[in-house]
Amino acid sequence: MEEIINEFTDIQNNDLNEIKEIELENSKDSKNNSKSSKKIANLRVSFLGGIGEVGKNMTVIEYLNDIIVVDAGLMFPTDDMLGIDLVVPDITYLKENKEKIRGFVITHGHEDHIGGLPYVLNEISAPVYGSKLTCALIHKKFEEHKKISFKTNVVKPNQKIKLGVFEIEFIHTNHSIAGAFALAIKTPVGVIMHTGDYHIDLTPVNGEVIDFAKFAEYGNRGVLLLMQDSTNAERPGMSVSEKTVAVTINRLFDEHKDSRIIVATFASNVNRLQEIMNIAEKHNRKVAFTGRSMINMTDIASKVGGMSINKNNIIDIDKLKNYKDNEVCIISTGSQGEAMSALVRMANGDFKGIEIGENDRIIFSSSPIPGNEKSVSNLINKLLLRGAKVICNGLEAVHASGHAYRDELKIMFALVKPKYFIPVHGEVKHLMAHQEVAESMGIDRHNIIIPMNGMRVDLNRNYFKVAATVPFGSRLIDGAGIGELDSNVLRERKQLSEDGLCIVMLSVNTKLGILNKPEIVSRGFTYVGEALSWLEEAKSVILDSAQDVDLKGRDYQTLKMNVRKSLTNFLFKKLKRKPMIIPIIVES
Amino acid sequence: MEEIINEFTDIQNNDLNEIKEIELENSKDSKNNSKSSKKIANLRVSFLGGIGEVGKNMTVIEYLNDIIVVDAGLMFPTDDMLGIDLVVPDITYLKENKEKIRGFVITHGHEDHIGGLPYVLNEISAPVYGSKLTCALIHKKFEEHKKISFKTNVVKPNQKIKLGVFEIEFIHTNHSIAGAFALAIKTPVGVIMHTGDYHIDLTPVNGEVIDFAKFAEYGNRGVLLLMQDSTNAERPGMSVSEKTVAVTINRLFDEHKDSRIIVATFASNVNRLQEIMNIAEKHNRKVAFTGRSMINMTDIASKVGGMSINKNNIIDIDKLKNYKDNEVCIISTGSQGEAMSALVRMANGDFKGIEIGENDRIIFSSSPIPGNEKSVSNLINKLLLRGAKVICNGLEAVHASGHAYRDELKIMFALVKPKYFIPVHGEVKHLMAHQEVAESMGIDRHNIIIPMNGMRVDLNRNYFKVAATVPFGSRLIDGAGIGELDSNVLRERKQLSEDGLCIVMLSVNTKLGILNKPEIVSRGFTYVGEALSWLEEAKSVILDSAQDVDLKGRDYQTLKMNVRKSLTNFLFKKLKRKPMIIPIIVES
Repeated sequence: MEEIINEFTDIQNNDLNEIKEIELENSKDSKNNSKSSKKIANLRVSFLGGIGEVGKNMTVIEYLNDIIVVDAGLMFPTDDMLGIDLVVPDITYLKENKEKIRGFVITHGHEDHIGGLPYVLNEISAPVYGSKLTCALIHKKFEEHKKISFKTNVVKPNQKIKLGVFEIEFIHTNHSIAGAFALAIKTPVGVIMHTGDYHIDLTPVNGEVIDFAKFAEYGNRGVLLLMQDSTNAERPGMSVSEKTVAVTINRLFDEHKDSRIIVATFASNVNRLQEIMNIAEKHNRKVAFTGRSMINMTDIASKVGGMSINKNNIIDIDKLKNYKDNEVCIISTGSQGEAMSALVRMANGDFKGIEIGENDRIIFSSSPIPGNEKSVSNLINKLLLRGAKVICNGLEAVHASGHAYRDELKIMFALVKPKYFIPVHGEVKHLMAHQEVAESMGIDRHNIIIPMNGMRVDLNRNYFKVAATVPFGSRLIDGAGIGELDSNVLRERKQLSEDGLCIVMLSVNTKLGILNKPEIVSRGFTYVGEALSWLEEAKSVILDSAQDVDLKGRDYQTLKMNVRKSLTNFLFKKLKRKPMIIPIIVES
Repeated sequence: MEEIINEFTDIQNNDLNEIKEIELENSKDSKNNSKSSKKIANLRVSFLGGIGEVGKNMTVIEYLNDIIVVDAGLMFPTDDMLGIDLVVPDITYLKENKEKIRGFVITHGHEDHIGGLPYVLNEISAPVYGSKLTCALIHKKFEEHKKISFKTNVVKPNQKIKLGVFEIEFIHTNHSIAGAFALAIKTPVGVIMHTGDYHIDLTPVNGEVIDFAKFAEYGNRGVLLLMQDSTNAERPGMSVSEKTVAVTINRLFDEHKDSRIIVATFASNVNRLQEIMNIAEKHNRKVAFTGRSMINMTDIASKVGGMSINKNNIIDIDKLKNYKDNEVCIISTGSQGEAMSALVRMANGDFKGIEIGENDRIIFSSSPIPGNEKSVSNLINKLLLRGAKVICNGLEAVHASGHAYRDELKIMFALVKPKYFIPVHGEVKHLMAHQEVAESMGIDRHNIIIPMNGMRVDLNRNYFKVAATVPFGSRLIDGAGIGELDSNVLRERKQLSEDGLCIVMLSVNTKLGILNKPEIVSRGFTYVGEALSWLEEAKSVILDSAQDVDLKGRDYQTLKMNVRKSLTNFLFKKLKRKPMIIPIIVES
């Protein structure tokens, strides 16, 4: 590795702002460039992923015959993906380059970084690397998918691994889940720093401050490319520390010492959970966890050592009745207003053993993920209606984001001093805002590329360009099946969801023609009593449309088309609705 | 009226905090109360409306044989109301009391205050009162619904009308639509002040400051009940003035003098539109309006005098090509990311004559209505991807809310000094926050009622109680039909939207049994190629389930049930999906 670093170090003496658009390798007619003393290939960085944020779910780093993949996450379906459970990235590109893949390096254990692994490893075989907690969470996923043969490799902070030509060092960061890493990836053309999802927490509650020194060290030796988390690139200043959250929650426990306290938060925020447990214990309150993911998470985190649980202070939900309100603290899922989550069921009066009332203080130690604002609002309204007091982030500092704000991003630029920059992990608006931050820190605009899903960026010490589009997209997980984004299935569901359907049955005899009046069966279409007003008329319309059809010649295609067209027109005129029309011809 | 005021004035001398729970009227066994010198009936205030915000769409004020209705709005369907176009309040209560209704008093011309009128007036006949602009907008609605026979009555600020025992004075306020009124309603038991939707704008751009003096005058004479807009009760301080918005937009025109400027805002904010037009003209830019509602609104507002349009400075969209970027300003709908709106079509590249590019500066003079955050975000991302610069509220003061913030609410309490208070127009959390504000202004908690839809509050000078529930709910407007919230239609659409449907056709002969293998037709259910793997097996499962059915006895109910059950189980096991199963029996 020493060699690579040396090779790179002297690039730093070049004019960093000078961009020479030369491609030295893989291109036969390219000529030697005077500044570059030896031929090196381009490094390729490709972003696989389908919807929403870019560069989050899967990033492919490639040099000649070696590929490493950073993260393998899933996405959550958007509103128009009716009935879809999950979305995973299309991995055609990986399948096409199967034999090159040296490994998956996973930055942390959130769903959007690990959730695609069970699907990907079905088709690609390569080792997986991550922190102890990350690996434990991946194994939990494997179990759920019954993939017991899959393995992972646990790495520690500062550990280096070699995958093909790449050497990867894992660097400790702060994030809303423990065991989060940034990656320093040494490549033949220079070092790539990938921050993963991170923020800077100068006073974390359980663990160390982000490893500033390591970033500085790489920065001093020279970093070719930085890829940095853009989620909060629109927010000025610095993010809140977990310590601040802990202090606030502690004070709230003091202030509401006669009430029952329920804290809703993210199950994966192990450090937060630990801190809430500690505060509860200090206030002589037993802790009960509700929600499957909360129970899974505490189980896993306590096993791998990310959490230290005093079992004497934990009680089961069904033991709550043995304690007074001021003797318990419930830690619950549902902070996003998710339909079947514990807190939503409590709000609906559907949670056995917990009835929300006037003596409840419900702390939302969270903030709504974009798109969930309305369901969180609805949840809060329901809790208030039951008489509970609700304490949200904003008025009280009961939540800290795990993503760096603008000043933190600037600190990273100052430490790492990259030549090139690609903002990752964010919607377009976040990436654009991040570009602004980069420019304000002296990165030349030409040395910044805003990535898009499917984009392949090629780079070397003198070259940095969007080079190609690789196969990308979304695979929709629908029950046990996998569908495509533009499938008929989704289009049909959309039509069905809006105006329902009408099945028209026609009994046809090739000699006698249509035998009886058509029968109509509808679903999701007519309101009680409504059908009476149009049913008979509709039947005549259908019969009329069948008149000129060649039934003797069995031209059922035309018959179906006519029925569809005439009934659609009739119903729209009559009811201003457009149900799906399904003609069924029965020959007799 | 003098009499009523005098009668009320002396109540002010009573101990305002003392609540006597007496019902003097309509209750035969009630006894005379020593403090009350004569028998008066209770005033009744009922809140009709279905979903979301309370007390917004329709408030019924009733005294013995007289009823007035404040506003008649519509609601927008929530995500689970699949295929529903609009929601209007259930008006059973009004129909039951038809002969008592003396009129509809409309506070302002927003959809959630006037949109229900065409439906209500179909069944209830009573005069409608509102400002000039409000009435013009109502007439536009009537035209769209082809209700040309309906009439409205235009009232001016400070005008008083008498409806039954009620005397109503219309008071000028500031809101995000011109012609907004608060109402002072004199009743036999005291004065009700209803603020409508309002905020305090000390420097409005086109029009007067809210009529402080009038509120003070009523306050000094004594107000029994205040009903006040709660929308922004969670926000501290004061709302932004339209003048501030105008100054910011003017500066942005200066700063981006070489670019094309597109301003997205609410069509109904007539004063804002006027101001943007003025600024554009000052900067020598022609104005083009896009979006149907924008064109309708400017048309109406210029006709009734709420807007003064310099026709020489307005151009049609198709004339844009004759001007340079820096010679035009486009004012557009779509600030909420609405699917078919002008700005969204521009972002999608679907708007004829306007191609978004790098020289566009798009000002969102708006903020996302709760629930629209994600679609606004998506819109912004798309515009950024086309190279445009986007300027949103928050970083720049390009929008002012039309609803009072906490300090404004306090000013209203200080002016009106009500005995009783009902927070209206808001979700539960807003109403609760408003209660806090009221208490901080010295209103006794017992003199505050948090309303709910369907609640009837009874009050007189010594009594203030939730008395009954009146019929309420949502009527779903679906094309030309009207449905109920709990209808099968919505449940069926939900199921169809998630997993589609399978139609199973069985040819049955009462003697021979099932003749052929069943035929299966599906929609929104199977992905390409998928059916092959299960279709034959499914047919056997169906046939098996039919084995014990008494076909000779034509027990088709059991047959259908068995088919439904067995196929549902089979498909869930095989595909983890639950389509709607529709068995169709053809007898032959």
